[in-house]
Amino acid sequence: MYGLLTDFYELTMAQGFFLSGKADKVAYFDMYFRDIPDGGGYAVMAGVEQLMEYMENLKFTDDDIEYLRGKKIFCDEFLEYLRNFKFNCDVWAIPEGTPVFPNEPLVTVRGNLIEAQLIETMLLITINYQSLIATKASRIVRAANGRDVVEFGARRAQGTSAALHGARAAFVGGAVGTSCTLAEKEFSIPALGTMGHSWVQSFDNEYEAFLQFAKLYPTNCTLLVDTYNVLKSGVPNAIRVFDEVLKPLGITTGGIRLDSGDIAYLSQKARKILDAAGWHDIKIVASNSLDEYIIRDLLTQGANVDVFGVGERLITSKSYPVFGGVYKLAATEENGEIIPKIKISENPAKITTPYFKKIYRLFSKEDNMAIADVLTTYDEEIDETQEYEIFDPVHTWKRKKVTDFTAKLLQTQIFNEGKPCYKSPNVREIQQYCKDELAKIWNETKRFENPQEYYIDLSQKLWDIKYGMLKL
Amino acid sequence: MYGLLTDFYELTMAQGFFLSGKADKVAYFDMYFRDIPDGGGYAVMAGVEQLMEYMENLKFTDDDIEYLRGKKIFCDEFLEYLRNFKFNCDVWAIPEGTPVFPNEPLVTVRGNLIEAQLIETMLLITINYQSLIATKASRIVRAANGRDVVEFGARRAQGTSAALHGARAAFVGGAVGTSCTLAEKEFSIPALGTMGHSWVQSFDNEYEAFLQFAKLYPTNCTLLVDTYNVLKSGVPNAIRVFDEVLKPLGITTGGIRLDSGDIAYLSQKARKILDAAGWHDIKIVASNSLDEYIIRDLLTQGANVDVFGVGERLITSKSYPVFGGVYKLAATEENGEIIPKIKISENPAKITTPYFKKIYRLFSKEDNMAIADVLTTYDEEIDETQEYEIFDPVHTWKRKKVTDFTAKLLQTQIFNEGKPCYKSPNVREIQQYCKDELAKIWNETKRFENPQEYYIDLSQKLWDIKYGMLKL
Repeated sequence: MYGLLTDFYELTMAQGFFLSGKADKVAYFDMYFRDIPDGGGYAVMAGVEQLMEYMENLKFTDDDIEYLRGKKIFCDEFLEYLRNFKFNCDVWAIPEGTPVFPNEPLVTVRGNLIEAQLIETMLLITINYQSLIATKASRIVRAANGRDVVEFGARRAQGTSAALHGARAAFVGGAVGTSCTLAEKEFSIPALGTMGHSWVQSFDNEYEAFLQFAKLYPTNCTLLVDTYNVLKSGVPNAIRVFDEVLKPLGITTGGIRLDSGDIAYLSQKARKILDAAGWHDIKIVASNSLDEYIIRDLLTQGANVDVFGVGERLITSKSYPVFGGVYKLAATEENGEIIPKIKISENPAKITTPYFKKIYRLFSKEDNMAIADVLTTYDEEIDETQEYEIFDPVHTWKRKKVTDFTAKLLQTQIFNEGKPCYKSPNVREIQQYCKDELAKIWNETKRFENPQEYYIDLSQKLWDIKYGMLKL
Repeated sequence: MYGLLTDFYELTMAQGFFLSGKADKVAYFDMYFRDIPDGGGYAVMAGVEQLMEYMENLKFTDDDIEYLRGKKIFCDEFLEYLRNFKFNCDVWAIPEGTPVFPNEPLVTVRGNLIEAQLIETMLLITINYQSLIATKASRIVRAANGRDVVEFGARRAQGTSAALHGARAAFVGGAVGTSCTLAEKEFSIPALGTMGHSWVQSFDNEYEAFLQFAKLYPTNCTLLVDTYNVLKSGVPNAIRVFDEVLKPLGITTGGIRLDSGDIAYLSQKARKILDAAGWHDIKIVASNSLDEYIIRDLLTQGANVDVFGVGERLITSKSYPVFGGVYKLAATEENGEIIPKIKISENPAKITTPYFKKIYRLFSKEDNMAIADVLTTYDEEIDETQEYEIFDPVHTWKRKKVTDFTAKLLQTQIFNEGKPCYKSPNVREIQQYCKDELAKIWNETKRFENPQEYYIDLSQKLWDIKYGMLKL
């Protein structure tokens, strides 16, 4: 599966490692990101389940091998190696739904250099995209402030897998459903929908269109009221049909959807008309180029919306469509010893943190809120019974002593020598976990403007290794 | 294939059409877009080949049917209909690579209402994403002004299908290759690549890493020179290896890649050092968050770059990641007569153009440049031997008489009663076609800032139908 969905240089490098005797050299790679989308204060980890599927099923078909042979730069021995390829690495990942921060390893891979290198492209595609959308969804759900958010973006998704996995990631981040039918079949995410303008247009008039729909789907009757004129035609026709079809059946619930025009104004007017007609439980669904900023703005203006259908700006994370995760060599092994590796850059933000590491998240015992994440070497333990000093790895004079805390390891092992050793929770459990863990992050870090930067610190030992290599 | 990759409301509407006796009603739908990405003056059509694959293979598996049955809102008759589903529509599309403009139908579908409705989501995903990327690539290639552009974005693509089809669309728009290996296997787009930092880091030193690579790939030797220090270490080590490995083999070509730091400064310095060492034919490849604006800026600063590797900002069209194509009902048939349908909106830009239409592109016979596109009713012919008056559909006093022109129909039929009747050219032919057709669009329309708006006019007959329905 997806053996060749990899950057071509992964394959030329792989053959290079193979031919230069480095095939069995043990390497450690970290996947991490540098900047939080939209200038936010946190991101949401997602995509681990699909990453595991990829790693478990990665292989090169005969077809793939013959194509590569045709390139005339790969030797027979290497092609045979690929034909028999099996993934044998150890892999650790932060569980999906966890709030995550820049420069901490979301995924760590230990294994022979070829295998650990070859998976780079798919690892990044998988975690980058789903984390991007889970993060965006989380922001939008926060803006909706308790109202439902439904992911409606399939038609504007960047391709088929984005439509499917974007729906999954949006659910992880807190959306209550999706328009994408396949996402319900695959992941049991509720598939929701109302009607398109074509339904209304294909009948002789709007009333007739609403009437037929209500008769067919009386218990799930949300009518699109903006095809002709929302207040003069759409809402009155909807009420007439609710009266004629739903009322005799004793049904009091249903909805109307606004997809154009001034949502703040129209939703308040529509609410009044519906209430005056006694339809208090009819929900108002709004769609049309929404995102967290517009939703916040609509609510400030008193918009009377119960459900937000969010499309293109969620499924593409339009205002920040790239989750810039990278995958960097952190260490190799020589005769069983772990040798830290660093990439220095003219740009300080691009300098890597070397070595085989662990991440602890420290929580205050007093209120269970997260205090900081600390990256340590693989063999350090943080002793919860002792005072622990954290410090900013750049501004090292900024120090803080932490007491009365619990220290939780953030990564969990998902592969052990190529065998999966973690069972992914289902998306509903992941969504709940995300909600629970986000509740432990201060609102100051979660706000949209100038969020408080969450502490991501290095242990003294790790700091010494890193800055020792920079020869400062 | 992808039967359920559809918005859920397509299925509820489909059952609605089925049960309200509209299953065989003939409908006409248009797919078009309203705004050109990045405020540009043109877009590039792409994705037709994949759209055809979808339409040819669309079906619902037993598994799909059982999942739908479990929803308990679909009746057995409709589920049986889906089980036997076959696409029987007529479809017209503008060929891939064609410069296209707002409000003209890129795809037109005629067929029974259910079939024509059900394909909406996948049609939009396919054409929207590839047209988005082909358009972005075309802009970036223009900025590079004759230098090569390679698509390097797989790792930041929004999912696997975006990585693959984004590479294809980038090639349509003028990129010369891709990093995505699978795109070469599937579409014969050249897969290119250099090396990652991990290659350099995994050797004891940079020189050793370059030496091994050059020995392995002497005829395709592009060395990544920014792992430690570009000018002090990277370029000197590269030259040493070129001297030691390439020179004895009589090889004069190769490359270095800059992936961080100040590309304008470093590329000029590196060029001088390479030239001084006699390596005039070594190309300088630059990457690192490039797009059309940065490339233009780099070239203005005198950057000495031969090849631009463009990643996330191309594969996601980062500055404008949504191609807002929509799919709207334009007409139905009643007793063989075509009845125009319109969607009115509070927002004038969202009002549709009704009826079954054709698009003509008028070219001046004098210089072969495109003058305007004219939407006509399906049964109008534009007579090239007569003077033809075009006028702006909004500002109707803006009129222009055209003489000495040729009129070319833009759409071509791709399905005839569900049977494919068009063979897609290969991507290389499409790329060339794009180049040729873009040459017929004035530079004023192709510039990045305040491009001249290309004329998209309605024939008098079509205008009368549309504005008659608005009762102006």
